[in-house]
Amino acid sequence: MRNTFGNILSITTFGESHGAAIGGVIDGFPAGVKIDFDEIQRQVARRRPGQSAITTARNESDTVEVLSGVFEGVTLGTPIGFIIRNTNHHSSDYSDIAKCYRPSHADYTYQSKYGIRDYRGGGRSSARETAARVVAGAFAMQALQQLGIQLTAYTSQVSNIAVEGSYESLDLSAVDNNIARCPDEPKAQEMIAAITEAKSKGDTLGGVVTCVIKGVPVGLGEPVFSRLNAQLAAAMMSINAAKGVEFGLGFDFVNYRGSDVVDRFVNEGGKVTTATNYSGGIQGGISNGEDIYFNVAFKPVATLLQDVDTVDMDGNPTVLHAKGRHDPCVVPRAVPIVEAMAALVILDNYLLNRTSKL
Amino acid sequence: MRNTFGNILSITTFGESHGAAIGGVIDGFPAGVKIDFDEIQRQVARRRPGQSAITTARNESDTVEVLSGVFEGVTLGTPIGFIIRNTNHHSSDYSDIAKCYRPSHADYTYQSKYGIRDYRGGGRSSARETAARVVAGAFAMQALQQLGIQLTAYTSQVSNIAVEGSYESLDLSAVDNNIARCPDEPKAQEMIAAITEAKSKGDTLGGVVTCVIKGVPVGLGEPVFSRLNAQLAAAMMSINAAKGVEFGLGFDFVNYRGSDVVDRFVNEGGKVTTATNYSGGIQGGISNGEDIYFNVAFKPVATLLQDVDTVDMDGNPTVLHAKGRHDPCVVPRAVPIVEAMAALVILDNYLLNRTSKL
Amino acid sequence: MRNTFGNILSITTFGESHGAAIGGVIDGFPAGVKIDFDEIQRQVARRRPGQSAITTARNESDTVEVLSGVFEGVTLGTPIGFIIRNTNHHSSDYSDIAKCYRPSHADYTYQSKYGIRDYRGGGRSSARETAARVVAGAFAMQALQQLGIQLTAYTSQVSNIAVEGSYESLDLSAVDNNIARCPDEPKAQEMIAAITEAKSKGDTLGGVVTCVIKGVPVGLGEPVFSRLNAQLAAAMMSINAAKGVEFGLGFDFVNYRGSDVVDRFVNEGGKVTTATNYSGGIQGGISNGEDIYFNVAFKPVATLLQDVDTVDMDGNPTVLHAKGRHDPCVVPRAVPIVEAMAALVILDNYLLNRTSKL
Amino acid sequence: MRNTFGNILSITTFGESHGAAIGGVIDGFPAGVKIDFDEIQRQVARRRPGQSAITTARNESDTVEVLSGVFEGVTLGTPIGFIIRNTNHHSSDYSDIAKCYRPSHADYTYQSKYGIRDYRGGGRSSARETAARVVAGAFAMQALQQLGIQLTAYTSQVSNIAVEGSYESLDLSAVDNNIARCPDEPKAQEMIAAITEAKSKGDTLGGVVTCVIKGVPVGLGEPVFSRLNAQLAAAMMSINAAKGVEFGLGFDFVNYRGSDVVDRFVNEGGKVTTATNYSGGIQGGISNGEDIYFNVAFKPVATLLQDVDTVDMDGNPTVLHAKGRHDPCVVPRAVPIVEAMAALVILDNYLLNRTSKL
Repeated sequence: MRNTFGNILSITTFGESHGAAIGGVIDGFPAGVKIDFDEIQRQVARRRPGQSAITTARNESDTVEVLSGVFEGVTLGTPIGFIIRNTNHHSSDYSDIAKCYRPSHADYTYQSKYGIRDYRGGGRSSARETAARVVAGAFAMQALQQLGIQLTAYTSQVSNIAVEGSYESLDLSAVDNNIARCPDEPKAQEMIAAITEAKSKGDTLGGVVTCVIKGVPVGLGEPVFSRLNAQLAAAMMSINAAKGVEFGLGFDFVNYRGSDVVDRFVNEGGKVTTATNYSGGIQGGISNGEDIYFNVAFKPVATLLQDVDTVDMDGNPTVLHAKGRHDPCVVPRAVPIVEAMAALVILDNYLLNRTSKL
Repeated sequence: MRNTFGNILSITTFGESHGAAIGGVIDGFPAGVKIDFDEIQRQVARRRPGQSAITTARNESDTVEVLSGVFEGVTLGTPIGFIIRNTNHHSSDYSDIAKCYRPSHADYTYQSKYGIRDYRGGGRSSARETAARVVAGAFAMQALQQLGIQLTAYTSQVSNIAVEGSYESLDLSAVDNNIARCPDEPKAQEMIAAITEAKSKGDTLGGVVTCVIKGVPVGLGEPVFSRLNAQLAAAMMSINAAKGVEFGLGFDFVNYRGSDVVDRFVNEGGKVTTATNYSGGIQGGISNGEDIYFNVAFKPVATLLQDVDTVDMDGNPTVLHAKGRHDPCVVPRAVPIVEAMAALVILDNYLLNRTSKL
Repeated sequence: MRNTFGNILSITTFGESHGAAIGGVIDGFPAGVKIDFDEIQRQVARRRPGQSAITTARNESDTVEVLSGVFEGVTLGTPIGFIIRNTNHHSSDYSDIAKCYRPSHADYTYQSKYGIRDYRGGGRSSARETAARVVAGAFAMQALQQLGIQLTAYTSQVSNIAVEGSYESLDLSAVDNNIARCPDEPKAQEMIAAITEAKSKGDTLGGVVTCVIKGVPVGLGEPVFSRLNAQLAAAMMSINAAKGVEFGLGFDFVNYRGSDVVDRFVNEGGKVTTATNYSGGIQGGISNGEDIYFNVAFKPVATLLQDVDTVDMDGNPTVLHAKGRHDPCVVPRAVPIVEAMAALVILDNYLLNRTSKL
Repeated sequence: MRNTFGNILSITTFGESHGAAIGGVIDGFPAGVKIDFDEIQRQVARRRPGQSAITTARNESDTVEVLSGVFEGVTLGTPIGFIIRNTNHHSSDYSDIAKCYRPSHADYTYQSKYGIRDYRGGGRSSARETAARVVAGAFAMQALQQLGIQLTAYTSQVSNIAVEGSYESLDLSAVDNNIARCPDEPKAQEMIAAITEAKSKGDTLGGVVTCVIKGVPVGLGEPVFSRLNAQLAAAMMSINAAKGVEFGLGFDFVNYRGSDVVDRFVNEGGKVTTATNYSGGIQGGISNGEDIYFNVAFKPVATLLQDVDTVDMDGNPTVLHAKGRHDPCVVPRAVPIVEAMAALVILDNYLLNRTSKL
């Protein structure tokens, strides 16, 4: 079940980049949730290739077809199967890589592990697979909304251009106001310029996505191995090109003393809360009711539109000049994927937490 | 199965800090592995409290009793049950926290989630639970050794004192030469001094553990959700006080262009390898045969031996002055825990990979 | 993951009887298996409604569309997604049961559990779901064939008409020679007559399917909870209308003394085998290399084409006269389903067994 | 996780028959349940060897030591670890079987699968492992009691001596009034006589255990693969010597027409119920609120205290005359094991069902 993620609520995905279709099955989704299909399509469009000048030119409509699990607009509690047809194939772009390994890609590892690979567009290793996650996440998001949980991700850094200050100083409703998906408009423009410049040279940039979840009830997360942060970390590190994840202050915790960064409890009008939230809303692996926030680092995309030294399948040195259509920076398109995976984890743990007491 | 970790090879742990015992069950451990019990005890001693001047004064012998799964010194393929008795109880130290919440601890979240908690020493949320992981990891390590896989973790940073350069410049056999578990001896002495100073003020420090795994065959890791890095991330983020994890260049990837950091393939005497290893040995979620390396950030311990404002169980403000015996910095003791969790993930995926092809 | 079955090799199914499509995802299928798609379609046709005079008149072509996981006719080791469109809807047949509960059906239990149900044709509770299992089983069967494992099921009893003697006296290649799927031709004709007679009265019959698996290597099955028989039992009891399962002599064991039915070991030309095989090829939950055989009991279909007393959704008494198209006896169509589920269990455990030793 | 059973609530067991101890970990047990430890010990005593004249003479006190998960008599929601020491070793009894395979035992299959086995008393394959299940079941039973669910198993058949009529004609509170655990006292005496006679000849008998569960709410069970009956079937078939399981009328369904055995709904004082209960309380894999009842067939114990032909580990024919202490009929001791496994399934599904709707 290596293509399945989740405990009670799970998503199973399938599909190669240039096969007939990608898709998935959402299992354990609670019955009785009214589904807005336009909203699901809207979320998928946020991840869609070809959506802006700074994304790949592959142009997929990414039309979601829901095949089961919803009856008269309401979830049945049965598995929700769905597919997205692959239409804009340019398989011929990939004839070069049929016989050689793209550096820092999964070509070599898939070939070694399975003895075979679908080389067209990376096959299963393509980030195209994540469209299925966005569908599942969009379902989860609609349930979370009913529960009063708000979940937003945004681009907080591209290359060395970083939003200053914490998420609290930003207007999170402004994420989609620009194609960088950065709610700090001046920084967004700098990011777009940097991505455009890198693209013009056939080069790529990395960056950071920050995710903020508000309204999470106390008690989500299942120690010890299924700590909420452990589940979120697995979710995030299962996204293509993700290379790091940190919660609350994260790696920056190291620069402080304990006395600087413990989150003292206070009583705010009868409600126990914390004066600060360096922990990022999770203590002992369980949500404490404060905002959950975390960062995910994405490496620069490995596909360069320039000559790169590599080897072919026989191990002979060769030079690869990738054709095809590729993102110069995945970060803006990673935003809805991070949201989707986070939404699945939160809803799953919301359900799971109902079993904590008799 | 929230206290179980792993796919084929799994570890289930149980036990509260001040209960009768902690322990675990290792399931799916392959038959036929000769076990050196002294080595297991030695690994547990590396995590043991009271081992040095910079760790907690709680003095547990942490004697491991293996109850099953090994016959005449060889594993049977059946579950390996084991226990470690808790002997050095000072439960009275905890009378104060029976009725109030320690800031940045799990007291509040456990109480909210379960409606009850064993407040003595943090109960289940105590890092004492990780001793069971070290036992399991020590079993896994013995199997890995037979497979030619070497796994080493070390303290790479405490507070602002960081080892310079990569793991390749260090003598990884020197990790246990000092109580900081840092193979850079001058830095180790600085770290020890910093921890000692913080301890004298009842304060605490955070840090970073780096883990290096050599000799991993190509092919470990199961896309898409069970990518090797996703599994390792979950493993690491399930360790107490861990707040971030990054693979290869990790967050630093953001500071480079793609053309700077793709790992070009080269043919080295007939073997496909990469000229650089910025990826950290994993591509597309599957090991590529290069060294796997990653960093784990640990926050400063939350228990301060000084006055801290908090609230009691009724929500009333109160001042807590923690008694008990606590680490001023968990990083040196986290080293064997990181190793243990990594060893379990690698052996598990080694077994799993046998099922990739017919 | 309640719609997922299996350990390493798993099948996840989705779909309502009268929704857009049913389908599934096969995960963990080993790479490198050449797939005969015609054979898959042939297996699905064996379960297809409308295939003969003694099955339901619903006429579905049940065309399988494989969407992923196979490249140039060979499995990739990635998930195999597939769908079967529902085409022959007669949803209007179900207007009566929208508001009342068919006795001994899942209408009432689904409605109670989920607060909603797709009443058309039973929705998710319809045996139509099992078509997805047959697809998955047909993939597994092709791998088993390469491994020299033969798996055959047949109708051994319908109503009181039972094949005499054990499977060893039958020609198992003759199963599809008649529409009863009984290799004992005279008995098959009696069964067909009985089903035809019951059908003419709007009544239904139950029966027994026997499954025989030859060539299974010693060692499959994972004690203690994943005994091979426990996994097979779960697989069989997850089939619609199955009410009992027994291995080897099964319930008949009770009629013998131990000394009559222990399977004595003998050395047959250098190979350890057993003189008898009352156990049915499994000892201690692990295959012993002898033929595995077991029986599955199916109740008479609950949908009667005659007046039946029941209650409506408000609890008021009412009389239901089912319309729609229904099988008078599911047993002949259950044969390929039993085979499919057994094939999945055997292949899964074959893969799993590779991890038993280092 | 092959030694783990369950979804939300799980039991992991470990231990060899003649190792240091057996034990287990109950995970996902809900917090806040007051535990009566005497009652747990009482249940274990019901399975204990040496309890009566018709069980094995092995005399184990089977004292349960609970190590975690319970604080001041109340469950914490954390894993409950426990052990039972093995004290009454007669390992020397097993010197003969160290080098030969007992017919119809797991000696040969374990040796083949793992390349090693603990031959003493069957090692892991011994029914001694089930004592850990009884402990876990006794915890579950205490939670079920709070929920108003009553669960009783009894011996309904030994050899050809069968209780007549259904469970409804019996006084289920009388199960422990005799050592056969049959609430039909005259039949119980016949059974005891039959077992005593078989024992005197070094022979063994099989039988049937019937289990009845009252007060189960509507809605338990998770289609399609985790049907309540599929889970119960797996649970039952994971018990040593179990060879068949049937629900409601089970195999006897085959002897009826659909019109005879559909369970018509009726309104009984405002409550939807069924006029009959041939289905055994489960429809479409989900409990319908009626009594759940099922039968489990146990084969005659394979260990005969008489000469038996077999082969040794080199494949040479030999004659085995088992020493050791063995049950002439496991059925009376299987009663609490069946109850334990059923209790775990029901409580697990009770918790799981809380996640069905948003």
